[in-house]
Amino acid sequence: MSVNARDFRVCSDKGICLKNYESNWLPKWIDQENHRGLKQQALVVLEENRQKLIHEQELLWASDSYAMLIILQGMDAAGKDSTIRHVMSGVNPQGCRVTSFKTPSAEELKHDFLWRHIKMLPERGSIGIFNRSYYEDVLIVKVRSDVFAKQKLPPIENKERFWEHRYEDINSFERHLTRCGTLVLKFYLHISKKEQKKRLLKRLENPAKAWKFSLTDIEERTKWSEYEKAYEEMLNKTSTKWAPWYVVPADRKWVAHALVSEVITTEIKKLNLEYPALSETKKRELAAAKAELEKE
Amino acid sequence: MSVNARDFRVCSDKGICLKNYESNWLPKWIDQENHRGLKQQALVVLEENRQKLIHEQELLWASDSYAMLIILQGMDAAGKDSTIRHVMSGVNPQGCRVTSFKTPSAEELKHDFLWRHIKMLPERGSIGIFNRSYYEDVLIVKVRSDVFAKQKLPPIENKERFWEHRYEDINSFERHLTRCGTLVLKFYLHISKKEQKKRLLKRLENPAKAWKFSLTDIEERTKWSEYEKAYEEMLNKTSTKWAPWYVVPADRKWVAHALVSEVITTEIKKLNLEYPALSETKKRELAAAKAELEKE
Repeated sequence: MSVNARDFRVCSDKGICLKNYESNWLPKWIDQENHRGLKQQALVVLEENRQKLIHEQELLWASDSYAMLIILQGMDAAGKDSTIRHVMSGVNPQGCRVTSFKTPSAEELKHDFLWRHIKMLPERGSIGIFNRSYYEDVLIVKVRSDVFAKQKLPPIENKERFWEHRYEDINSFERHLTRCGTLVLKFYLHISKKEQKKRLLKRLENPAKAWKFSLTDIEERTKWSEYEKAYEEMLNKTSTKWAPWYVVPADRKWVAHALVSEVITTEIKKLNLEYPALSETKKRELAAAKAELEKE
Repeated sequence: MSVNARDFRVCSDKGICLKNYESNWLPKWIDQENHRGLKQQALVVLEENRQKLIHEQELLWASDSYAMLIILQGMDAAGKDSTIRHVMSGVNPQGCRVTSFKTPSAEELKHDFLWRHIKMLPERGSIGIFNRSYYEDVLIVKVRSDVFAKQKLPPIENKERFWEHRYEDINSFERHLTRCGTLVLKFYLHISKKEQKKRLLKRLENPAKAWKFSLTDIEERTKWSEYEKAYEEMLNKTSTKWAPWYVVPADRKWVAHALVSEVITTEIKKLNLEYPALSETKKRELAAAKAELEKE
């Protein structure tokens, strides 16, 4: 499955319309009904990328200047957890931390909406994965007035501008991160309403998955089109040169996994990471240390 | 001492030159040599403002929407600690936290330069005081290449633009804070090189202050004009509508204290803080609770 990750990138300058993105996308030359061969290829791609990522992570750690932040967003059951499991399982957990952002605590609500996320940012040399993120502050917070009310904000003069400001603040903040050495990659896992129904039913029927089910999933589902609108606006307003969004067709998990891994490995490679060069002094020190050890 | 705090505010649109600011400023109508009466007045102003601030802090806490961040910058011995002690003692420590930022730790250096400061931001209802701040990242980090080298940044393409970006990132970040309900007040305590010498000598001679003395103070002093230039640029680039700088004449500590307290109380008053209004439901609840208690 040779695909160009760039095709899934949201260009900040032209508005996108989510309806034009197929959540069950497959490469054009593939017979939609007969894609078993393709799935095999996708799994191979995923495995190759995982090996590349393991190597790049070592370089990231050794060179100690850059960090990588991966943000995953998507409707309930879009496959965020499984994407993390499949794409990232191989990497050294010492240099990789996943944070799932749930309902904010009372302390967190006392701060600006970026605060709790900033605390969990990856340090130089590391990979940080945000399973949901501050983007929820322009999604659920925008769609649900009860969640909005909990933010205890000072009086808002202009509601329309309020959201514009949030997008702007997020963009400026990510630009700052990028400038300080964090590679920011953002994935929107795009599923259809039909596929979500299938997955939620599966959760209900499978005892190993039923714990993941929550009644709010059903409630949220009734607001599907409002969420879709909020996602669309988020993608259009916050896909920037320095921190672009990728819309990942996610009705087929194996497609999503292969694509996400493709983007990550392509982008981290562009950093041209290398092991730190040894200075002449350092080389002499190492030679001396070697001699010392051999004398023992 | 009736002064207009606004006069000390740096207007973002016109460039300022620190040389035009008198560090030993006194109101024009005062005989520079005979200002004992004025000092008494300044102490009265300070005390009045302290009372006002105590009241406003209660409202800040009760209304629980806004926070206040006070940033103090200045050369060594400019009087940052004493300003905090004189202006802020009196406020309830439960809603006020002072953070002194010293040399960053290894963990902190692993993050972007705002990170360690963001962790310590005041929450809604509280006052946060930064004794030095992320502005050191455009001061000492700019002046001293050894400190710069410790930041482990990715390769820098354009050094001039690098600093422009830092200013821009700081401004965007403070704008975000302001939008989320934090009032940001920034004070540059302006002293002359001569006054610093006097204070450093006093430190050396007074056993109760000698512990505050460090050899690096002398080292830093040799870079006076470079620091002055860095401060000037910082003031010009980061004094914004939403988070202005105040240049406080600080050769006389009582002048500095009166001015800082004047700005703080003036600005917090503008928030028009009020105790939360009781809803009809709440009033009924309270009445019921009262009746219940009285029945006992």
